[in-house]
Amino acid sequence: MLERRKPIPIGDAVQKIMEHQLHGVTEYVSINESFGRFLSEDLIATSDVPHFDRAPYDGFAVRSIDTREASQANPVEFKVIDHLGAGMVSTKVVGQNQAVRIMTGAMMPEGTDAVVMFEVAQDNEKNGTPYMSIKRSFNKGDNVSFTGEDAKKGEVLVKKGTLINPGIQAMLATFGYKDVPVAKKPLVGLFATGTELLEVEEALVPGKIRNSNSHMIAAQIERAGGNVKYFGKLPDEFDTCFEAVKNVLNEVDLLITTGGVSVGDFDYLPAIYDKLGAEVLFNKVAMRPGSVTTVAEYKGKILFGLSGNPSACYVGFELFARPIIRKMLFSEKVHLRKEMALLQADFPKANPFTRFVRSSAFIEDGRLKATPSGLDKSNIIMSLAGANSLMILPGGTRGFTAGSEVEVLFLEDQTGSEWPW
Amino acid sequence: MLERRKPIPIGDAVQKIMEHQLHGVTEYVSINESFGRFLSEDLIATSDVPHFDRAPYDGFAVRSIDTREASQANPVEFKVIDHLGAGMVSTKVVGQNQAVRIMTGAMMPEGTDAVVMFEVAQDNEKNGTPYMSIKRSFNKGDNVSFTGEDAKKGEVLVKKGTLINPGIQAMLATFGYKDVPVAKKPLVGLFATGTELLEVEEALVPGKIRNSNSHMIAAQIERAGGNVKYFGKLPDEFDTCFEAVKNVLNEVDLLITTGGVSVGDFDYLPAIYDKLGAEVLFNKVAMRPGSVTTVAEYKGKILFGLSGNPSACYVGFELFARPIIRKMLFSEKVHLRKEMALLQADFPKANPFTRFVRSSAFIEDGRLKATPSGLDKSNIIMSLAGANSLMILPGGTRGFTAGSEVEVLFLEDQTGSEWPW
Repeated sequence: MLERRKPIPIGDAVQKIMEHQLHGVTEYVSINESFGRFLSEDLIATSDVPHFDRAPYDGFAVRSIDTREASQANPVEFKVIDHLGAGMVSTKVVGQNQAVRIMTGAMMPEGTDAVVMFEVAQDNEKNGTPYMSIKRSFNKGDNVSFTGEDAKKGEVLVKKGTLINPGIQAMLATFGYKDVPVAKKPLVGLFATGTELLEVEEALVPGKIRNSNSHMIAAQIERAGGNVKYFGKLPDEFDTCFEAVKNVLNEVDLLITTGGVSVGDFDYLPAIYDKLGAEVLFNKVAMRPGSVTTVAEYKGKILFGLSGNPSACYVGFELFARPIIRKMLFSEKVHLRKEMALLQADFPKANPFTRFVRSSAFIEDGRLKATPSGLDKSNIIMSLAGANSLMILPGGTRGFTAGSEVEVLFLEDQTGSEWPW
Repeated sequence: MLERRKPIPIGDAVQKIMEHQLHGVTEYVSINESFGRFLSEDLIATSDVPHFDRAPYDGFAVRSIDTREASQANPVEFKVIDHLGAGMVSTKVVGQNQAVRIMTGAMMPEGTDAVVMFEVAQDNEKNGTPYMSIKRSFNKGDNVSFTGEDAKKGEVLVKKGTLINPGIQAMLATFGYKDVPVAKKPLVGLFATGTELLEVEEALVPGKIRNSNSHMIAAQIERAGGNVKYFGKLPDEFDTCFEAVKNVLNEVDLLITTGGVSVGDFDYLPAIYDKLGAEVLFNKVAMRPGSVTTVAEYKGKILFGLSGNPSACYVGFELFARPIIRKMLFSEKVHLRKEMALLQADFPKANPFTRFVRSSAFIEDGRLKATPSGLDKSNIIMSLAGANSLMILPGGTRGFTAGSEVEVLFLEDQTGSEWPW
């Protein structure tokens, strides 16, 4: 009496989801709130950098023409007519054999075209007037940072979809982005289903466990860049679940449920999708854990029916829900970053389906290696805590031995990949 | 007339800072707010997991003793006396040749000690009463998840100082941590000094630039795990700066200033530390950029005088301020993670001091590689945006060629290292 479902390859499942047109939305946030958000427009240089010729060192600004004859045998003397710190602007025009004492970052005074660093100048004073002399010549432009040297006005400096890091924060400030265009965080609704679930504050009773999936998925949503709206837990009752799911769909961009997607007697999500009239994109994927992951589309919203099993739930989110969230954040590399690693342990289990093994990936002597981070029992949440990656063990094989090359997906990395499948 | 400062090795500089006893403080936050925080106490299993024997599959719970004679030739029949979903508890005691239909996660009924999966059972019905039969025997414990199998009450599961990831969120929920003990975020005060600085919303004028360092460092503080309190920008005026620094010291755990630490005519931080009576730990480090980084201690507070040069400022924060913040977050690996990488470009410049080059580190064919992420001019903030690492090029060398092995420090990685110097 078991329902028979036809498993589809992982890549096909991801493809079916990504075909749906979900677009990002721009919102403006203060630069003080923009760290960690995703740019929704290209960051463009609104001015040259620097936007004036400036001294890159402490020294004396001079006219290079006046230094031509300077040598060890023939020191040339300059009268120091002004003294500039960064941010100060000289009102003087520098004439023949005149110099301005200038600090790093200050604007080159009119007439000057080179900077003599302190180390090669000899200070002196005559009747209270400062002078300096040099024993070598300088070319026009020596020790000057020229306008536009670092960036030209109009240049695209950072592409949209990029995560804003401290360096980008500095650029935003440099170019006057007081308000920064960032991707609005997609709002992801979340229900946990299961009569066995207790809330975190409830005492344990026989047969019931605390709802850990919601807290895990909420953190995964946040890590992916979304906002979570937790609607609570639902018992395994068809009508209750149906009404609950139907009622919240307009409030969110995406909806995730955990549990209720297998073929058990109280797994109602497939029937709920059916009654809603949602189009089921797939209800079985050729993978472990998470083969029963079911994804449907209804009126432009994607409904993720993740397994109630913690590992399957975790993997299902990262493979199927994360890329849609990243797409709505304007990212071009929406999937988890994939790399080749050396397997550090035997993995003798045969895999009919592709298996995702929670792993610790690390670099040793410049080489990426990966080792399973715990027993691979699908109900063990413990090994999730130490995992920074998922090892991909392809299906149809007889197991793997230490030293094999395997692919890993990085969980805690923002680099992403365009298409890992 | 240049002040002569004696440079100390990087490791010595870091050591001098880390000797100061700054301790973390615990605060309790809701589990809904704990993702991304650092545990300030060990996470301990408050119960066994599972805390009751349960079915890991859908099937029939039976007494294994009743299956002993079952074989292909001799099917044994069981009367199905109850039907359990997860979270339901049977009130019945299972007797001889009786079974309970049971769903994944449900508690094993009294008397049963094995689960027969649906796939190997034959359902039938007699006069409205369900029966099932099997053609093989089962041992005590077959297909049962036993109490304590995943975790034992009292076990330390995650060490304090660990960053809370989605897996740890799941564990916190499982063990009833409604309120989670986390490290209070250190409050880091921040001043930018420099008469040349404009705020982000101000229009450019000749000789002045927008204050980018504060926004960059604020993001670095946040990335490190601290909270920032930005006190504004200060002109290069001794009295103004002195009063400003003195007045805020009681409000913060650490104080960072940018600018004013070099030997220019308007660099007042050394004199400010002197007038305060602060103990200067060092004022010159054998490194580029950031050699003028000056760190002082005053009444238990550490004062970081970072260079006003954006690159030097960035590097100075990561090497010297980040580890103190991480220490206050109970971390055991407070420094940036260090790995060996293959240099992907020639770097012909000779280095009298150890040089930190902003780099893009990546993995290719399982091998870590690194390439400079931009021109290494210290006033170029542009290359900071694309950098995910700092390449360490040791001093006293004649330059480096592509293919050399170099050490890199990861900027966007939470792994950390105990001591990279």
